[in-house]
Amino acid sequence: MIKPRTPPGVMELLPRDQIAFQRMLDTIRRNYERFGFLPVETPVMELSEVLLTKSGGETERQVYFVQSTGALEKAGEGMPELALRFDLTVPLARYVAEHEHDLAFPFRRYQMQRVYRGERAQRGRFREFYQCDIDVIGKDSLSVRYDAEIPAVIHAVFSELAIGKFTIQLNNRKLMRGFFEDRGVADPDLQARVLREVDKLDKRGADYVRETLTGEGFGLAADAVDAIMAFVQVRSTSHAEAIAHLDALGDGNEALREGVAELREVLELVRAMGLPEADYALNFSIARGLDYYTGTVYETTLDDYPQIGSICSGGRYENLASHYTKSKLPGVGISIGLTRLFWQLREAGLVGTGESTVDVLVTQMDADALPQSLALASELRAGGIDTEVVMEASKLGKQFKYADRAGIRFVAVLGEDEAARGVVTIKDLRDGDQFEAPRAGMVAAVQARMAQGEAR
Amino acid sequence: MIKPRTPPGVMELLPRDQIAFQRMLDTIRRNYERFGFLPVETPVMELSEVLLTKSGGETERQVYFVQSTGALEKAGEGMPELALRFDLTVPLARYVAEHEHDLAFPFRRYQMQRVYRGERAQRGRFREFYQCDIDVIGKDSLSVRYDAEIPAVIHAVFSELAIGKFTIQLNNRKLMRGFFEDRGVADPDLQARVLREVDKLDKRGADYVRETLTGEGFGLAADAVDAIMAFVQVRSTSHAEAIAHLDALGDGNEALREGVAELREVLELVRAMGLPEADYALNFSIARGLDYYTGTVYETTLDDYPQIGSICSGGRYENLASHYTKSKLPGVGISIGLTRLFWQLREAGLVGTGESTVDVLVTQMDADALPQSLALASELRAGGIDTEVVMEASKLGKQFKYADRAGIRFVAVLGEDEAARGVVTIKDLRDGDQFEAPRAGMVAAVQARMAQGEAR
Repeated sequence: MIKPRTPPGVMELLPRDQIAFQRMLDTIRRNYERFGFLPVETPVMELSEVLLTKSGGETERQVYFVQSTGALEKAGEGMPELALRFDLTVPLARYVAEHEHDLAFPFRRYQMQRVYRGERAQRGRFREFYQCDIDVIGKDSLSVRYDAEIPAVIHAVFSELAIGKFTIQLNNRKLMRGFFEDRGVADPDLQARVLREVDKLDKRGADYVRETLTGEGFGLAADAVDAIMAFVQVRSTSHAEAIAHLDALGDGNEALREGVAELREVLELVRAMGLPEADYALNFSIARGLDYYTGTVYETTLDDYPQIGSICSGGRYENLASHYTKSKLPGVGISIGLTRLFWQLREAGLVGTGESTVDVLVTQMDADALPQSLALASELRAGGIDTEVVMEASKLGKQFKYADRAGIRFVAVLGEDEAARGVVTIKDLRDGDQFEAPRAGMVAAVQARMAQGEAR
Repeated sequence: MIKPRTPPGVMELLPRDQIAFQRMLDTIRRNYERFGFLPVETPVMELSEVLLTKSGGETERQVYFVQSTGALEKAGEGMPELALRFDLTVPLARYVAEHEHDLAFPFRRYQMQRVYRGERAQRGRFREFYQCDIDVIGKDSLSVRYDAEIPAVIHAVFSELAIGKFTIQLNNRKLMRGFFEDRGVADPDLQARVLREVDKLDKRGADYVRETLTGEGFGLAADAVDAIMAFVQVRSTSHAEAIAHLDALGDGNEALREGVAELREVLELVRAMGLPEADYALNFSIARGLDYYTGTVYETTLDDYPQIGSICSGGRYENLASHYTKSKLPGVGISIGLTRLFWQLREAGLVGTGESTVDVLVTQMDADALPQSLALASELRAGGIDTEVVMEASKLGKQFKYADRAGIRFVAVLGEDEAARGVVTIKDLRDGDQFEAPRAGMVAAVQARMAQGEAR
């Protein structure tokens, strides 16, 4: 006898939690499609040679290699032929380069699949997790206008997920680079190190950061440090304030001017799409991956749960697939790490176990009446109502209890008495209402109740 | 520069094919839920020790093993710790045994995920493919009535998939075993060998099969062979005929009697659920996995494409998880191998590339008018209409051509002229109709057209 168990670092859910998770996946997918993104799925296994184009990436990414029984037996030294994807960006790059001539550009795709990382086992860290990505990929060029659509998608997704008030925070890497260069921090590595120090503002205080940055390791001028510290604390609370912050940056160098112009255009179009001003903001401290993103960058945070960190991030990049094609493929995209988000929301008590996918339980009082119950269930199903039938009778009370525990909303009883009178008894477990519907009008009655529920 | 390519034996689709595939997945899921099955997802990786409970299974199943970079470096001899699932049945057994005390029985679950097999690379053979399974698992016992629900689910799925006329074929392993035992073929291995010979009836003819089975290797009596050959050719064409075939089997031994009784009950309940008589049939030649299934067995075939073989198969089994728990867990279930089915349907020209998920393309004539286009798109999206906006203007003709190629049904034009008159021009590319809608009634106009389309 072998102990049944999953490997460490994976999230496996009981059915009612799986339903809640699936509803989040569906909501994200529906909204991605609403904005015209097309579905793509790629194989979980990629050729190692294709997946691991950068030396060192293999260790960094803690890649899982895959070998069939046969390959394992023959295994020499060297890298196994296959590996599991560690994100959806590299497979996207490979996909777009491979199918370049069959795709229309700008290419808008969404992809929602699991990815794999050999992380150290730790609470809240997953070795298998869902990423839900969208990207728009241009050929040769891609207007900054596309950057403005992304916050609208984020807004639609998180509004419908209804997990609380959130803010979409925007910055621009060019603006940031220009600003730092003007303060004598031109080297990208140095910028990264300065940003890391500035990140400690909240924990260590302004004096500590000022001392560090003017001190030996950095040697920045005191007024440059003050300017940087003021800069990274900029947050807007309205559209007009965001624009005013951009205006206040003045003329500066070319990178700064470009970044300001891009961010301004993005903000104006975001407003044109009808996003409420309270739901987006400038935040000059957001950097994301310094070596990857080159323009607009996004983070999204839950206002009441800042400790959760960014729940949806991304940005604009210069060239998607330089390892695979000579074509220049600039893009902009975001990713939602849903497994981790779901786990965090559960920890914070923000998602519960949902109602069942089953709408109606048809009870059984007498095995001889089963054909009638089955016919009733067939009608309900034909009416678009998800229906389970009790196939082996137990006490009626037990059947009601089962429906209640399973999160099934309606229980239908078609006993001898009901059959004789041509009615069905229906109990709505959500509010406890019990009523009779004529046998022929039963489906409409349940449909009407369900429609009411949605309208609430 | 690395050549972008997928590993052999995987199916990767372009977006419009992916949409067609996704719609099939959605249809299957919707119908599984309609019958009260609950979603389950399991990790793609299982502990090898848990996954490979039977000796020899590893080679048979051509398992893929998984090792992280770290594990690979340390790898000694022995079996790697992790492996990819090769079906959804073993993970189900592990899941039910692991979560036994948190599940309600009979446990009805559906699972639609990819599985992995290190098959020899070959046209139409896949190393990664979707399985879409349902199972009902009982604790200690499970009424044969559940076996009757399965054909109803199959019927709902394939009716809605609309890939042509199909027949759900039923048999019962007990009935089959009983029949063979009465003809002196009691040994299960011998039964299997006899069935393999009988399978050659179509190709080699009755004389060949009769000679083989009465000959040296088998030594069966001539009348037994005739009875067997008649038996495996039984097909019913109506409910009454199916019942008559069961009656004609007479009294026989206990296994035969039990099998007949079970099949009779299944057929009666299948009829009670409203399945058309033409869509299900007895077929005494169906055996499925002889060592796994113990009662009802199912196969489903497309009437006009018999060469595709069974598109949905399964049956009743005695005990799901004997390797993991002492509880007896009988079950009944089916599986649809969707990747292979999709491939076959495409080869047969039965699925085309579908319409896009995008319903409306909002064109652009002038960059200055983009805010108005974006506002229009926001309204369409709020009305549940999937909408793409042209963000960078090109010639209008080119934008129409793009929509046509992409399979987008509606094109919306909001030019200077339209804006001045407070209207939007809409072209329905499905029938070529072009009409104007008042700006305020635009969403309703598109919704009405879409609803018409569905009603057809």
